[in-house]
Amino acid sequence: MWSNSELAKRLHIQWPIIQAGMAGGTTTPELVAAVSQAGGLGTLGAAYMNAEQIRAAIRAIREQTDKPFGVNLFIPEPFDAHQKVAESVSRVMNEVRSQLDIPLDPDVASFTEPFEKQMAIVLEERVPVFSFTFGMLDQAWMKKLKEQGVTVIGTATTVREAVALEESGVDMLTAQGSEAGGHRGSFLPDAPSNMIGTMALVPQIVDRVNIPVIAAGGIMDGRGIAAAFALGAQAVQLGTVFLTCTESGAHSLHKRAVLEASDESVVITRAFSGKAARGVSNHFMKLLAPLEKELPSYPVQNALTRDIRAAASKQQKSEYLSMWAGQAASLAKACTAKELIQRLVDETEQVRRRL
Amino acid sequence: MWSNSELAKRLHIQWPIIQAGMAGGTTTPELVAAVSQAGGLGTLGAAYMNAEQIRAAIRAIREQTDKPFGVNLFIPEPFDAHQKVAESVSRVMNEVRSQLDIPLDPDVASFTEPFEKQMAIVLEERVPVFSFTFGMLDQAWMKKLKEQGVTVIGTATTVREAVALEESGVDMLTAQGSEAGGHRGSFLPDAPSNMIGTMALVPQIVDRVNIPVIAAGGIMDGRGIAAAFALGAQAVQLGTVFLTCTESGAHSLHKRAVLEASDESVVITRAFSGKAARGVSNHFMKLLAPLEKELPSYPVQNALTRDIRAAASKQQKSEYLSMWAGQAASLAKACTAKELIQRLVDETEQVRRRL
Repeated sequence: MWSNSELAKRLHIQWPIIQAGMAGGTTTPELVAAVSQAGGLGTLGAAYMNAEQIRAAIRAIREQTDKPFGVNLFIPEPFDAHQKVAESVSRVMNEVRSQLDIPLDPDVASFTEPFEKQMAIVLEERVPVFSFTFGMLDQAWMKKLKEQGVTVIGTATTVREAVALEESGVDMLTAQGSEAGGHRGSFLPDAPSNMIGTMALVPQIVDRVNIPVIAAGGIMDGRGIAAAFALGAQAVQLGTVFLTCTESGAHSLHKRAVLEASDESVVITRAFSGKAARGVSNHFMKLLAPLEKELPSYPVQNALTRDIRAAASKQQKSEYLSMWAGQAASLAKACTAKELIQRLVDETEQVRRRL
Repeated sequence: MWSNSELAKRLHIQWPIIQAGMAGGTTTPELVAAVSQAGGLGTLGAAYMNAEQIRAAIRAIREQTDKPFGVNLFIPEPFDAHQKVAESVSRVMNEVRSQLDIPLDPDVASFTEPFEKQMAIVLEERVPVFSFTFGMLDQAWMKKLKEQGVTVIGTATTVREAVALEESGVDMLTAQGSEAGGHRGSFLPDAPSNMIGTMALVPQIVDRVNIPVIAAGGIMDGRGIAAAFALGAQAVQLGTVFLTCTESGAHSLHKRAVLEASDESVVITRAFSGKAARGVSNHFMKLLAPLEKELPSYPVQNALTRDIRAAASKQQKSEYLSMWAGQAASLAKACTAKELIQRLVDETEQVRRRL
C-alpha cells in the first residue's frame, strides 16, 4: 500500500510525504518540525544559510521534535565571480534599484555560502537525511555521510541524471518534473530538452534505477499523491503547498500570490538567480525577460539581485520579490502543517478507495 | 471504479481509453477499428484528409467494427496565404530540397482541406464521437452535431481554455498536458505560459468544469492511466503508444524513432507546421531552430514542408520526417492494438490493487 513503502520504513516516517527543502527562509524550524511531528519528513532548505545559521536551525528543529528530518543544500558549480555583466542588464537592475530607493551598483561581498562549511555542520549535527540539488555530490562527502548512516537523496530532472545519481551512491532520488516550483535541479548539459513533465518522468526513471524514487512537480493534494504512487514513486515531495502553511517563513505577499495564482501565471525565469526557476510571474521577470540571454549565470545573478529582493521584501513590493511556485499553485490553501499533512493523508486514502 | 466512469457509459465503451486522433496517416481504419473492437475508443485523425478520404475511412472503419469510434479535426484559424516567407527560411528549406533532389520553391496548391466539407461528412456519416483541437467549434456546427446526438469533445491546454470550451457546449474535454506528442492544442492567446504538465493541469481543470475530463500527455501504460484517474480524469487519451501498433500507419522510421526515443530526445518545434508540436528531435528541427521566430505560422509552414515530408517518407530519410511523439515515448512497445488495450487494462488493474 502507498503509505507503507520501503522508503517510508527506511526513513522511519509514518507517511511518505516530504516537504521540499525550499531555500530562502521559507522552511523555518517551526515548519520543518511541524511536518516531521505530523508524520511526514520536514526538510530545512539551507542552501542560502551560513554554517552557524544551519546549526541554529537544526537545533531549533530538534527542540520541537525527535522525529527524523532532512537538510537540503545546493551543489556548488564553477563560476566566474568577475564576469562582466551586460550593460543592458545593469541598466534595468539599476532602474529597479532607483524605484526601491537603494544604492546603485552595489558591491557583492560573497556569491554563495561556502559549501564545505555547510556540509561540516550537516555531519557534525548528524542530520538523519541529507538531500541536494544542482549536481552530484563529491565522493568524499558521500563516504562521510554514509559512514554516519545519513540517508542521501539527489535530484534528477532526466533519466540520465537519475542514472548518474544512482551510480554515485545516493540512497534514493527525487524525480523533479517540469511542473515543480523553484529552481530546476538540472545539471547534465547537452540535452535538447530537460523540461519533462512529472507524468512522463517518474515512470521512465522508475524503470531505469533500482533505488526508491520520490516524485515532485505539480503535486498539491491527495489526487497528486495517489497519482505519483500509481506512477511507481515510493514517496512524494511537495513544496508549493507548504509555502502557505502558518509555519512557513514565506513573505506574506508570496503566500498571497500563491493563493491567487492560476495555472498560466506561474512561469520559468532566470531573472532572479541566473538559473531557471519557476515562480509567479511579476514585473521584475517581465523587465528582464527580453535580456534572458544576457543575464549572468547562477550564482552571480542571484547575488546581484540580493539587495533588490531584500528591499522589496522590506518595502512590501511583490513586483520585485522572487515568488517561487509550481504549476498547480492554485490548489494551495492556508492552514497549519499538521492540518495539511492530515488532509493529504485523508485525501490520498479517499482517492485510493475511489480507484 | 476507474473503468466504470460516467464517461465510459456515455460513450458506450468498455474501457475509458481513447486512441488520439493523430493526423497524417497514422490512424488507419484498421487501427481505429481494432481499438474500438478491443473496447476502447478509436479515433480517426482526419485533419489532413479531404471529404472523400474521410468518408472512405469512416466506411472502412464500419466494415471492421460496429463499436463506437471518433473523428478528429483541426478548427481552422485565419491566416495569410500570401504572407512573405523570410528569405532565411526559404534558403534553408531549399537546401533541404536539394538534398532530397526535389524542385525548389514549389507552388502550394492548397493550405488546408476545407473544414466545411470535412464537417459535412462527419454529419452525413453520423459518427458517434467528434473531437477537435486548435480552437472552439462554431455554434452552428455544435447545434447540428447535438441534434444528431454526436458526443462532442474539445481540447484544452489551460484552465481558461477548459472553461471556454465548457461554455461553448462540448460534452467533455481533453486536458492536454505539456508532455503530449504532436501539436499543442492551445488556442487562447495572452497567457504567459501554456506548457502545463498533466499532473498540474488535470486536477485544476477538474475543479473548474462540470463536464468529464479526459487526461492526455505522457500516459503510456497502466501506471499513467491509474495516475490520470487518481487526478480526477474520467478517461485517458493516448497517442504515442498507438503509433507503434501493427495497425498504425506511421512510417516505419517514425515507429523506430519512437521505440528508440529517450525522455530528452523528444522536443517542441515549430519547424514542420508553424505551430508548436512535440516530436523526436531530428536534423530538420535543428536546421530551423535558429529561425524559429521567422517561420510562417500554421498552416502556411505546414503546407510549405509538405513536399519535403513526402519526399523524406518516400526516400526513407528520417532526418526530414515529422516524427511526433510524447515525452514518455521510450515506454512504447511494438504490438497489435488488441494486445495493447488488453495490456493497458491489466496493468491499470494491477496498479489499482497495488495502491
